[in-house]
Amino acid sequence: MNLTKNVRPLINKTNVNLIRQLSSSADSDYSFKTLRVSVPSEFVYHVEFNRPERRNAMNPSFFSEIKNCFEKLRYDPDCRTVLISGKGKGFTAGLDLTELSQMVSIDQEDVGRKGFQLLKIIEDYQTSLSSIEKCHKPVISLVHGHCIGGGIDLIAACDIRYCSKDAWFSVKEVDVGLAADIGTLQRFPKITGNDSLVRELIYTARNFTPEEALKLGLVSLITDDQDSLLAKGLETAKLIASKSPIAVQGSKINLNFSRDNKIEDSLKFVAAWNSGMLQSEDLIKSAMASISKEQPIFSKL
Amino acid sequence: MNLTKNVRPLINKTNVNLIRQLSSSADSDYSFKTLRVSVPSEFVYHVEFNRPERRNAMNPSFFSEIKNCFEKLRYDPDCRTVLISGKGKGFTAGLDLTELSQMVSIDQEDVGRKGFQLLKIIEDYQTSLSSIEKCHKPVISLVHGHCIGGGIDLIAACDIRYCSKDAWFSVKEVDVGLAADIGTLQRFPKITGNDSLVRELIYTARNFTPEEALKLGLVSLITDDQDSLLAKGLETAKLIASKSPIAVQGSKINLNFSRDNKIEDSLKFVAAWNSGMLQSEDLIKSAMASISKEQPIFSKL
Amino acid sequence: MNLTKNVRPLINKTNVNLIRQLSSSADSDYSFKTLRVSVPSEFVYHVEFNRPERRNAMNPSFFSEIKNCFEKLRYDPDCRTVLISGKGKGFTAGLDLTELSQMVSIDQEDVGRKGFQLLKIIEDYQTSLSSIEKCHKPVISLVHGHCIGGGIDLIAACDIRYCSKDAWFSVKEVDVGLAADIGTLQRFPKITGNDSLVRELIYTARNFTPEEALKLGLVSLITDDQDSLLAKGLETAKLIASKSPIAVQGSKINLNFSRDNKIEDSLKFVAAWNSGMLQSEDLIKSAMASISKEQPIFSKL
Amino acid sequence: MNLTKNVRPLINKTNVNLIRQLSSSADSDYSFKTLRVSVPSEFVYHVEFNRPERRNAMNPSFFSEIKNCFEKLRYDPDCRTVLISGKGKGFTAGLDLTELSQMVSIDQEDVGRKGFQLLKIIEDYQTSLSSIEKCHKPVISLVHGHCIGGGIDLIAACDIRYCSKDAWFSVKEVDVGLAADIGTLQRFPKITGNDSLVRELIYTARNFTPEEALKLGLVSLITDDQDSLLAKGLETAKLIASKSPIAVQGSKINLNFSRDNKIEDSLKFVAAWNSGMLQSEDLIKSAMASISKEQPIFSKL
Amino acid sequence: MNLTKNVRPLINKTNVNLIRQLSSSADSDYSFKTLRVSVPSEFVYHVEFNRPERRNAMNPSFFSEIKNCFEKLRYDPDCRTVLISGKGKGFTAGLDLTELSQMVSIDQEDVGRKGFQLLKIIEDYQTSLSSIEKCHKPVISLVHGHCIGGGIDLIAACDIRYCSKDAWFSVKEVDVGLAADIGTLQRFPKITGNDSLVRELIYTARNFTPEEALKLGLVSLITDDQDSLLAKGLETAKLIASKSPIAVQGSKINLNFSRDNKIEDSLKFVAAWNSGMLQSEDLIKSAMASISKEQPIFSKL
Amino acid sequence: MNLTKNVRPLINKTNVNLIRQLSSSADSDYSFKTLRVSVPSEFVYHVEFNRPERRNAMNPSFFSEIKNCFEKLRYDPDCRTVLISGKGKGFTAGLDLTELSQMVSIDQEDVGRKGFQLLKIIEDYQTSLSSIEKCHKPVISLVHGHCIGGGIDLIAACDIRYCSKDAWFSVKEVDVGLAADIGTLQRFPKITGNDSLVRELIYTARNFTPEEALKLGLVSLITDDQDSLLAKGLETAKLIASKSPIAVQGSKINLNFSRDNKIEDSLKFVAAWNSGMLQSEDLIKSAMASISKEQPIFSKL
Repeated sequence: MNLTKNVRPLINKTNVNLIRQLSSSADSDYSFKTLRVSVPSEFVYHVEFNRPERRNAMNPSFFSEIKNCFEKLRYDPDCRTVLISGKGKGFTAGLDLTELSQMVSIDQEDVGRKGFQLLKIIEDYQTSLSSIEKCHKPVISLVHGHCIGGGIDLIAACDIRYCSKDAWFSVKEVDVGLAADIGTLQRFPKITGNDSLVRELIYTARNFTPEEALKLGLVSLITDDQDSLLAKGLETAKLIASKSPIAVQGSKINLNFSRDNKIEDSLKFVAAWNSGMLQSEDLIKSAMASISKEQPIFSKL
Repeated sequence: MNLTKNVRPLINKTNVNLIRQLSSSADSDYSFKTLRVSVPSEFVYHVEFNRPERRNAMNPSFFSEIKNCFEKLRYDPDCRTVLISGKGKGFTAGLDLTELSQMVSIDQEDVGRKGFQLLKIIEDYQTSLSSIEKCHKPVISLVHGHCIGGGIDLIAACDIRYCSKDAWFSVKEVDVGLAADIGTLQRFPKITGNDSLVRELIYTARNFTPEEALKLGLVSLITDDQDSLLAKGLETAKLIASKSPIAVQGSKINLNFSRDNKIEDSLKFVAAWNSGMLQSEDLIKSAMASISKEQPIFSKL
Repeated sequence: MNLTKNVRPLINKTNVNLIRQLSSSADSDYSFKTLRVSVPSEFVYHVEFNRPERRNAMNPSFFSEIKNCFEKLRYDPDCRTVLISGKGKGFTAGLDLTELSQMVSIDQEDVGRKGFQLLKIIEDYQTSLSSIEKCHKPVISLVHGHCIGGGIDLIAACDIRYCSKDAWFSVKEVDVGLAADIGTLQRFPKITGNDSLVRELIYTARNFTPEEALKLGLVSLITDDQDSLLAKGLETAKLIASKSPIAVQGSKINLNFSRDNKIEDSLKFVAAWNSGMLQSEDLIKSAMASISKEQPIFSKL
Repeated sequence: MNLTKNVRPLINKTNVNLIRQLSSSADSDYSFKTLRVSVPSEFVYHVEFNRPERRNAMNPSFFSEIKNCFEKLRYDPDCRTVLISGKGKGFTAGLDLTELSQMVSIDQEDVGRKGFQLLKIIEDYQTSLSSIEKCHKPVISLVHGHCIGGGIDLIAACDIRYCSKDAWFSVKEVDVGLAADIGTLQRFPKITGNDSLVRELIYTARNFTPEEALKLGLVSLITDDQDSLLAKGLETAKLIASKSPIAVQGSKINLNFSRDNKIEDSLKFVAAWNSGMLQSEDLIKSAMASISKEQPIFSKL
Repeated sequence: MNLTKNVRPLINKTNVNLIRQLSSSADSDYSFKTLRVSVPSEFVYHVEFNRPERRNAMNPSFFSEIKNCFEKLRYDPDCRTVLISGKGKGFTAGLDLTELSQMVSIDQEDVGRKGFQLLKIIEDYQTSLSSIEKCHKPVISLVHGHCIGGGIDLIAACDIRYCSKDAWFSVKEVDVGLAADIGTLQRFPKITGNDSLVRELIYTARNFTPEEALKLGLVSLITDDQDSLLAKGLETAKLIASKSPIAVQGSKINLNFSRDNKIEDSLKFVAAWNSGMLQSEDLIKSAMASISKEQPIFSKL
Repeated sequence: MNLTKNVRPLINKTNVNLIRQLSSSADSDYSFKTLRVSVPSEFVYHVEFNRPERRNAMNPSFFSEIKNCFEKLRYDPDCRTVLISGKGKGFTAGLDLTELSQMVSIDQEDVGRKGFQLLKIIEDYQTSLSSIEKCHKPVISLVHGHCIGGGIDLIAACDIRYCSKDAWFSVKEVDVGLAADIGTLQRFPKITGNDSLVRELIYTARNFTPEEALKLGLVSLITDDQDSLLAKGLETAKLIASKSPIAVQGSKINLNFSRDNKIEDSLKFVAAWNSGMLQSEDLIKSAMASISKEQPIFSKL
């Protein structure tokens, strides 16, 4: 069986070009140096890593802008789902090495005080990537080419992961002499289904392929190339954007709560949640649409 | 590799007919309107959803009867394992739409008071499906045809999931305008191995196939048709029913505790559990049977 | 796709013989009756179950020696990773039956007092297997032939699991009349991705194949035979041993913490951890090595 | 300082007689053998243990009726708060000894099977007392005379505990040869502030006084005699019954969730809860009442 | 016994005036509308609620400024401890009523969408008060006069609570028709020792006295008047400020982690923490100071 | 009210001398350098800190011997409860300063490697003190004179704490430049009832009195002098030793589990526990003794 066979055959150049053309429409709130934000379809936002000349390496500005971007998207009524991809030859090369050397060279003799400064940096980076998880809208990461180190930390904080055949992955941190501290060790084993392989990849820092990533459960779809990757990502995004935002965002919030809590507590949480949300008009709109076979129009959220 | 190849070739019409013939033998305690309960083999109970004319949609009576049925089965010494399946063309169509409209039309103006009424309904439905999980006996769900919405919530509370090739699944709640609140968001990601696909299925509410379900880890076996599904289910059930009930039920109770707790605490729990249970006669019976190569006969539990 | 295709073609007799030749080099601290400990490569330790005449069944000495061995390895600066395998025809036959009969025949009439004695035995065995998990160094288990009962408990406490084609597995405890109490019920579902299959295997105690184990996520690699299994195990072990021990051991400690805790707490833990560990020289050594393209030499840890 | 000085001087015979007089008014749904249920004031229910001839010892009927009673009260719109007290010379003598001897004499040879039967009994009793905690309405226990063994388990599941000077307490289970299994070991240390004293009382099973109970934080008020105890209890109950039921019941539900969860998760829970409940009319009614200085009238809940 | 007797007799007008005089020295980063920030002593910051004409009621600006202020203080090397008090006749009157009416009157018909807007407001307020808890420096709240509703939520997020004899408290939320959602229900029971009294205070919304607050464990000191309150607060703050900031801030971070986690996990966390922090120069400085009997001078942190 | 008034007037010189006389009777397994172990009464063990010339400061031998001692006591059938006290002028001066300087001067340049060495030391000390908690028998600490730093960590791991009037306490770690890492920050707030005072004591490292300790809930009894302290401790110990060891030890195990777990999970744990333990003969013996009014004789455990 092949998961990719579900990709409906509407991926074509026109569609892909459309994505690229529309990419200038995001408003000025989403103007960043390391990111390019566009709106390829109604309610669908596209965040592109925009330092191809540096292989989209993650520097301090990047972390700061990711946080700003996703905190805005969290409550932006024009956004119902987000695509993430990298411009240029790959997704991201992970932590910018220059950045790392800054950490090492903090001008501070005392181990304790240097420790507090490192704590601050680590927390800032953690907060940055966690803003993707805390964004109420489903986030789909589309990986082509290299996805290294911090890139794994980042996609592990997304909801859905697709990649193209040319993608390759590496949990690189061990090769840089450190334990991954911005999400991989925390999230990677919980979103996949083979702890043995996860640990091998982390301890050896070796490259791994899309096929391994699929087998492992890290990605759920492999496409032939980057064009079809973007097209398939957009297709899923548009489908999600057509659904009740009350239902979709409530699902994400509850999935996140459930992951970290016991089933009994998660059931209590969703009961509290739905005691209000089931009173939304979206239920009636959905019911009526299902009878009339028309596409429901949901109010902004 | 194909998981289905382990199905031994004893699935035949005779066997399947046998199941159906025996289905009248459950006693009057298990007399329900929406369920049909039978005993196809010693210690094996079979619970069938019995509203084929409504595609086995889940209405208030259904939830109430599921609870009554599984609370009885929990301590019924004649039952060691339970099969669940749907009569007619499929497993279940999920929540009865009529039912949903009742929720929406609660005669209560105040949002807060309506919230409490919804809370009660949600809790009742949650309690109903959780009674399957809390039943000490392993429960095997056998899915053919449609398994939609509440059906996913239900099978996620079972121990083992098989399906036939004609099965199709859909986490439908988003299409109805709500976040799933009776188990899917809480249990589905914890019993499977690809969070990316789980979330895609939940956010898009799209149909998915037995092959995807197997890949994902939602089911562990696909059979050719409904007959072989029932036959294979019965085979596994009989095998389980032949084992020490002390061992099997203790395993389920501990698996459930472990899922929601830290390994250290789960080890403490099973130590407490076995400080008494290792004193059961079933250990000696099992040991002697293993020497004599005879099938052990275990007392009722 | 086949995970085995990643095994690079350097498995040959020379290599395998090398492993066996070097196996006499572990120092006298690691002298045991039921285990044989050797050092096949710098920083790589190999622990072999050494009761082939008893199919490596686990008796009280075995549990005691496993604990001693792994508590020593935990802080042994000459060890960076550990291989586990069984001598003779298979990995292990699980609990020694003689042992079990001892439990049953404790000379104590009172159920409560006997319960406390059983508690002590269970805790001792749990502590034994948990010492593998608590050892800071990645532990790779290499399964050939039979891996039964307590063997599953043991490999579930390891980091990485490989097996050869001739391996077969069985969660045997139910057949012995008890709920598994030294790790399987607690760890097995958390390291794999198909709860339905896990529970079927536990409730039925049936044998399962390497292919099922791979599908399930229990192992991450199948090799053709025992020689290639050892060779592949050694290859991975040497790769891990060549990395910064600060990074590798920090990763294991954090992976273990993360498995049992919420993501938010695990992020706090790794931040605390790295506030000190990022000040290690291993970061600079790794960075410089990456520039010079030379293999870094890390100090002992 | 004396906590009792807050008791306003409106405790008089008339008031107390009023309570007793009105006690016949609860409807037939609340007709029990071991309990007497009355409605001493609008929205205030009074549950009295009604086996004074047996010192209100807790027998199987008692546990079953407590469960039925509080599951009804949970959603009864005529009830906003509940008082619990004992008829006759004291609160309760704890588990009925006859009952205990039944447990010991279960007609079952096998330790494992007897274990499952005991499990069922323990769970039933736990469920019974937990129904008080799960009742949405604040429950105030009023202890006079003896409060022994199971009585401590029971009051620990209540919200508020008052006692009269003649009260005396004993965590009696150790004297009966067992570890308390229906709430005391689980709840007592969490609702008080001196773990050292709690453990002394549990390990020694000695009697303790109202003063120790107050010091410890087990009770929050001591009255001079049983009459003033009932009067003070009623006064607090009436005050609670005059408040918004949305606010009061929401507070109890959130206090219970918070006790068992991390602050971060509890904050998430109350945010979900109030996203609906803040839309209740009770906020406006309360605000208007606070301006007009009139007592607000809240709709039933 | 009286806790207040430990107040050393150095509270005099001079000292108190000194506090007030120095209050203009905080730099421009700490310039707010609803808060006044001063530095009464080296390393000691004083945050005063500065809307006495509105009884220091908490409005949206207040919540926003509290967050900004404490996020700055978190890493400000000139700050080692923080005092909080209210200007004018009392501490704070809690939520500004105008504010509440805004919540109620959100211009949004749909219950679900209004729910999301309320969610955002609640989260913002929660984040504001939690910033006090997350500030690494101990925060001492000094309550005089009224401390109502949101005021209880706020002081519950502080480390230390003192009050003067004229203080009075009220968990007011139930009187406003809602369950407290910014900290009280979550933190109050965990920092005190009499759950019965806590719940009575929450369900009745009645006023309570400093003596009750002390008995309950909410405050740890009562002073005669506001002057001695400020003096005593400053004395404790100066004492804390004279200690190693590595030690003090590490203690707060670990106390917070421990409160929400199991002892076993908290021990692991502090071990990770101190593996770096014990290498700080502050240990040697402290040791040397203890020998030389001189006051150690610690570097900024 | 005064908790001390419950001390029955049987404390006299004879009784106290008896304790001292009998103190030579512990067998050779309990022969230590820093501890003196005696058996003042049947089933009661007395562990005395035995380095009065060093004010009972805690050095590496002490930690190692505490661990050995309490791991033996855990399953020693002759021991049912343990008293801890200090020889000489006080309880303990806490960590031996020499010891601390060793930590600081570890001969290791690399921060990371030094971190791992510190980790090992911290874990060893934590394991040492946790062995008191993990000992199944109630441990009563009797504090006279100074109880400083590590002494607080140690008594926080005990079950019951008494002190004499001359006792004084100090959470000294902040004065030594570090966050307490062997139990105080983890256990102290959970066994007491005034978080504000706990934090003040930790941040300021100031001395505190028996009265404050009692108010706070750290101790539960103050005696006039050391003789009455030992006498009262022995009296409680003898009372505990006279009870069913099944009941007492089961209570401690369950109290410890409950402290770290949710009530729902703790109820499940105790149900599992008692499914075996209620079948002990101790229940019948207790019941019969209660009828015959004779002191029951329980078998060893």
